[in-house]
This record gives sequence, C-alpha cells and structure tokens, in this order.
Amino acid sequence: MTNPLRLGIAGLGTVGTGVVRIIQTHAEMLAQRAGRPVEITAVSARSKEKDRGIPLGDYAWEDDLVDLASRDDVDVLVELIGGDAGPAKQAAEKALLAGKDVVTANKAMLALHGQALAEAAEAAGAVLRFEAAVAGGIPCVKALTEGLAGNEIKRVLGVMNGTCNYILTRMEQAGLPYEEVFAEAESLGYLEADPTLDVGGIDAGHKLALLAAIAFGTQPNFDGLAIEGIERVAIEDIRHAADMGFRIKLLGVAQMTGRGLVQRMSPCLVPAGSPLGQLQGATNMVVIEGDASGQIVLRGAGAGEGPTASAVLSDVMDIARGTRLSTFGQPAIALRKVRSAMSSVPAPYYLRMTLIDKPGALAKIATVLGDAGISIDRMRQMDHEEALAPVLIVTHRTTRIALDEALDAMAGTGVMQGDPVALRIEAV
Amino acid sequence: MTNPLRLGIAGLGTVGTGVVRIIQTHAEMLAQRAGRPVEITAVSARSKEKDRGIPLGDYAWEDDLVDLASRDDVDVLVELIGGDAGPAKQAAEKALLAGKDVVTANKAMLALHGQALAEAAEAAGAVLRFEAAVAGGIPCVKALTEGLAGNEIKRVLGVMNGTCNYILTRMEQAGLPYEEVFAEAESLGYLEADPTLDVGGIDAGHKLALLAAIAFGTQPNFDGLAIEGIERVAIEDIRHAADMGFRIKLLGVAQMTGRGLVQRMSPCLVPAGSPLGQLQGATNMVVIEGDASGQIVLRGAGAGEGPTASAVLSDVMDIARGTRLSTFGQPAIALRKVRSAMSSVPAPYYLRMTLIDKPGALAKIATVLGDAGISIDRMRQMDHEEALAPVLIVTHRTTRIALDEALDAMAGTGVMQGDPVALRIEAV
Repeated sequence: MTNPLRLGIAGLGTVGTGVVRIIQTHAEMLAQRAGRPVEITAVSARSKEKDRGIPLGDYAWEDDLVDLASRDDVDVLVELIGGDAGPAKQAAEKALLAGKDVVTANKAMLALHGQALAEAAEAAGAVLRFEAAVAGGIPCVKALTEGLAGNEIKRVLGVMNGTCNYILTRMEQAGLPYEEVFAEAESLGYLEADPTLDVGGIDAGHKLALLAAIAFGTQPNFDGLAIEGIERVAIEDIRHAADMGFRIKLLGVAQMTGRGLVQRMSPCLVPAGSPLGQLQGATNMVVIEGDASGQIVLRGAGAGEGPTASAVLSDVMDIARGTRLSTFGQPAIALRKVRSAMSSVPAPYYLRMTLIDKPGALAKIATVLGDAGISIDRMRQMDHEEALAPVLIVTHRTTRIALDEALDAMAGTGVMQGDPVALRIEAV
Repeated sequence: MTNPLRLGIAGLGTVGTGVVRIIQTHAEMLAQRAGRPVEITAVSARSKEKDRGIPLGDYAWEDDLVDLASRDDVDVLVELIGGDAGPAKQAAEKALLAGKDVVTANKAMLALHGQALAEAAEAAGAVLRFEAAVAGGIPCVKALTEGLAGNEIKRVLGVMNGTCNYILTRMEQAGLPYEEVFAEAESLGYLEADPTLDVGGIDAGHKLALLAAIAFGTQPNFDGLAIEGIERVAIEDIRHAADMGFRIKLLGVAQMTGRGLVQRMSPCLVPAGSPLGQLQGATNMVVIEGDASGQIVLRGAGAGEGPTASAVLSDVMDIARGTRLSTFGQPAIALRKVRSAMSSVPAPYYLRMTLIDKPGALAKIATVLGDAGISIDRMRQMDHEEALAPVLIVTHRTTRIALDEALDAMAGTGVMQGDPVALRIEAV
C-alpha cells in the first residue's frame, strides 16, 4: 500500500485545526510510520474566511458537510463538528453508506446513535473509530479494545471530564465554594455553551457509555446511566472528605453484575492517596480492571487541541496501516442488549444532612438507617449556633437500593431540612 | 475470516501457563472479539510430565522448539522461553522464515537481535510483536506504536523493573539498608537467577531500548544505553531525597538530542508528588511525552502470570483480527542507526560523598565544582564523630559531561574517601 490515504476534514475548530497542523508538520513521519502518505484532500467548516493560522489553500473546500462525505477523492471522513444529530450524523451516515471510513471525536453522537452507526459501517465494510471521543489524548479506547482484548473486564472507571475535576480541585485548593469556582471556570471559557453537559455529568456520561460497550460487549446505552452532577458538592463535603483521607471526584464506573449492567456517573469519595485521588486539575484518568491484567491506569490531558488531535491521528494511522477493527471491539450485530441495573455492589456512603435541632432528631435518623439494615461507621454532629444542625454520617458497606430506601424514610421523619447529600465511597 | 488462528506455545512457565489458561477459560469471548476462534494446536516445554494445573492433552507436544516452529498446523509461534540467543532465537528465526507470525515476551532477544529479527519478519511477510516484553500488563508498546502514532515523541521514561521498585520502596518504608532488603527479595523469589539483571538495571535497560526504537524510529541499540543499577543507593540517600521532597527510582529515560540518542537507566530523584514518585512496590509505570498528546502516563503490574499473559494475548488478538504491524512501528529497513549520546540535557544532580575531615576539604570540593561551571543549590555537611564527614550537595542544572569532569577532578583532590554517589534529579 503506497497510495495515499485521503482525508476529508469536517470541522476546523480547535481539534480540526490541530489535526490539519499535525498532518502538515509531520507528513514525512506519518508516511514513514504508515507505509503510505496521509493527505488531506478536502475540508469543510462554517466559515471559509476565518483565519485559523494554517494554510488551507491546497485543499478543496466544501460548504456542505454531506458533500464532503460524498467526494470521490475522500477515503476517510474525519468528523469534528460535534452534535449528537444534525449535519455530523448525516455526513457520517452518508460516508459509511458509500463505504468510506469515519473517524470521529463525537461522543454524543456515538453514545446515542453508536449502535446504528456501527451496524451501518459493518454492513458497508467500512470502519468507524472514535479514540478522540473519550478522554482526549489518552489512548484508552485502544487500550481497552485491543491492549486488554484477552481480558474479561471487571470494571471500568475514571475521571473523564476535565472541567469538573478542575472545579473540584480548585474548590479544595483555594477553599472556595462551588458557585464561585463555577463562575471562574465560566469566565475562563472552560465550560461548554450549555454547562450542564459538563457539571451535570452528561459529557462524561457519554464517554462512560462508550467504554462500557467495549468492555462488556453490549450496545451503548447512555439512557441506562445513573447520572448525578457535581452541582451539590459543597466545600464542606470536600473538607470532611479530606479529613477522612478522601477526595471527591466526578467518577464514572461501569460494571457488569448478575442483575445487569451498572453504569454510574456521580461524585464519589476516593482515597486521597490512590491514583484517582491524586489526579489534579483538568487531567483525565481511565482505570481498567481486567481479570488477567489487574488494574491498568491511564492518565493524560482530557481535552485541548494537541491531545484530541493526537487521538484522531491514532485512528487515522490505524486505517492508513490497514488495521480494520469493529467500532466496539466485536461485530455490532453481536453486541448484547442488556438491562441496566442500579448498583448492587455494596459500598460505604458519605451522607451530609441538616437536622432540625430538637431532642431525638439524630436518634430518628439512626433508627431509619438501622431499620434499612445500614450500620453506621461514624456519625458527627457539627457545632452550630442556629436551630439547624449539620450532621455527617459515614455508613458501613451497603447497597444503593437500601440507601435509597433509607433516604426516602428519612424524608418522612420530619427532622430533616432539605435533601441529604449522599456520596458513594468507591474502592479504587 | 472464520478459520481459527492456530498457536504453538513455546514455554509453559508462569507466562505460558497463563496464556493457555486465558485461551481455555475465555475461548468464546476471544472468538467473539476476534471474529474467529483462537486455538492452541501444539506446545513445547522442558518437561512433559510436570503438573501445571491445566489440561494439555488436546495439544500436540513437541520436545524440540524448532520442531514446534516448523509445524504446518501452527500459524503463530508464541515464544515464552526467554534467553537472548539459543533455542528461543532459533525457533523465532525458523518460524519467521516459514512466514509464521511470532509473538514473544523476550526482551533480551529483541533488545539484542530485534533489528535482524524484524527484518527477517518483514522479508517473509510475517509479523513479530512483543507487547509482553515491556512492562508486563501495561499496553505500552501499543500505546506508543499506535495510540501516539501521530506524535513526534519528545521523551519516553519509566519505572520498568518491579523488583527494583519494590526494593527501593521497602527500604524507604521500613528504613532498612539495601543489603537487607535485597536478601529479603531474594528469599521471596523476586529476583532473577542472576540478580544483576534486575538490580543492575539490565532487564529494565532491555525494555527501554525497545521503547526507544519505536519512539525515535531507530534500530534498537541496547549497547548504547548508559546503565547504572541500584546497588549503591543507600538508605541515607533515600532519606535525604525524602527530606527534599523526592523519591529515588530506577528510572529509564530515552530522548533524542542534537548529539544523538540518549538512553539512560539509572537511579534518579523524582518529585515525591509526581505519578512516578508515587509509584510504590512492584508496579511499573511508563510515561510517554508526545508533541501533540503531552504527557501520557500508563501504570500497571509489570510482571506475573496474569498481566504478562494479558499482554501476550494483546498481540495474539491483533493477529487474529488481521492487524499487521511492523515490529518497531515502521519498516525495519527504514529504522535509522543513530549514534548514542551522553545526556546533554541539563539537570540538577544529587551528590553524596565522604570527605576526610580536615581544614579546607569542603572548600576544595566547592572549588572543583565551580571550576567545572557547576553551581551549588545546597550543600550540607552532616554531623559526624569520626574523621570522615558525610557531605550532601545538590547542584543547579548542569550536564552529565560537566559533572563527570568535576567528579574526576574531585578524585584528584585527595580529600575524598571512596567514590561519590551522583544521582540525577529528573524533571517529570
């Protein structure tokens, strides 16, 4: 194979520009490694006039994405537009139908429509790859699909939204409340246009759904995720956690259980000394636990021009080298449709609640927990001056189902003000 | 492709047994992921009678490795015998010559003969892969060759010998001298038959030479490595390092410079809070720095049945899926032969020496350093009762060449007893 691999780049934002820059800077190196040149033949983006700091004159320009996907001189559509439906999906479908390969960084599109797209790819003999959709520059899709292909995967977990980890780290280090750090992150341009995608755990949830599909041979099922964002994590939760040797992370966990596939994206306590606990700032971490490999930890930048473009190039170079892999590591039609389960894997929980300071209030809460079969590891009522007493409870290992029953019952005691914060303490 | 991939397993020690166990336990899962069955047709090992706890009756037995490599019903030779030359190499050569693929965990063979073997593989249209040769279960060969294929690699570094890291960690945690922990490790069976391979840095050096070849597109050149073992690291070095916020690790570093390829395997100081500094016990870590990806950190078990077998399966599954990669990420004949260079990358150094306690001794040492253009960051003469004064010096950034000149000159001052310990402080 010495004929060039011809790319059509859809989208010239941060990542698209990064991809073009790598291909322009490292043409010779890439050709050497791939055994053939990797070229760009055409590009498409919203504005042709915008100065992106890279020469684009050698490439054909298409105003319309679908036209780009249809060009005879494009072997691979590199889709870097984003959006779960709309033009990105239309262009991907068009390219696959024509037997062209597709490389994408589009987590939302794949989390919601990955099954149909993977089936379309396979029907046409094309490949659809998405290393850049999960955890930026960390080659975690490859590690899971290929590097650990001999393992039954026990658990996949990780910190996969750099903005949330930045916010939580900054709250801890500067001792600032959530609202203040959120505003800071917003003014720095760290948040998506709809910040709920970040702080609500949706963006990270998309990524987890994709890793879970590969890990467990199941159809991607974003709707089956239990998602909780970081909006309710208070600075006092971070402080209490630190006092007990933990850090709070927006943690994604996927695990197959007898009841079905558990997929959770939620703020959790992890040991401060663990690799996940030590992860600071916007860095991402993916942890894969295989039955043979044991725990494999992968860490790197989760976003940004260079790292994400590096991941796009990983897929492009695979295709250039002739590597043909199924989207989720096995034929799409063979992926199982499994039911989603609430976590039945027991864990200790951290609870923080506000009690109305009257005799017997604490006893009522303790009784509710006891009735649900949940035993208390530690309990502490904080100093307070007003009529409301902040109470902190760490339970022994219990299931989320038992905990939810207890939380429901607590709400009926009449001694609690507002909803408690309940965070899982994850063993990592 | 639905015809089975047929393996011949050479060697049924820990790793070989692990590979057989995975294939027996997960036959269906592997077939699902590969799109075809992965089968063992024949095995070879020293003793046919030994009970390995796995049924071998379904496989043909070959007493001779080369016969195994010649069988018509073997598509892939899985070489898990070890030894840089001898039967392992003969069998690999035989298999490649016959156009069979070879998967190996043999770091010594590849570090010393990888170039010739890779050329033989390519001449025959066969592939030769070695994920299990570097850092056990961590899919670092794949990450570097494929996941980061779009990057110009700036530096590859890591802790790649679990035994050394165990010894250094145990010294620090138990406050025990090197000799005592070495004896302990030996009695626990953690050391190779020739312990120099471990504590002398040779085993880790083999691994670094392989990663460097991929990273920089150069012929593997183990002889070009500057290797220093951990034998001279004393408990007081570990304590002094800790006082300054560092940990001592047997660190491999490969870096391309204007003067040539720098490959070092030596005990270094790394910040205690960095991922490398936090690495405890027998765990391995590989850090890859790409121009686009930034720093990617990979961590996992560096040895043992499961992890190493998992890495063997990574290569086997690639082959089963039809992935055909060059051994070192580009055609072997295109790999450059570059000259080795002493590190010209400046760094601060930690020096510990014993001075004869007489007036002007310390001044003489300081003068020598000054004459070599090396400035001192801190210097401390320890309390002592005898006529010998332990002295600790941390330099500002300097080159190894300047430092070696200074160390030579120090030896001529007549105020020093024995050789100083000189450890690089690596920025990670």
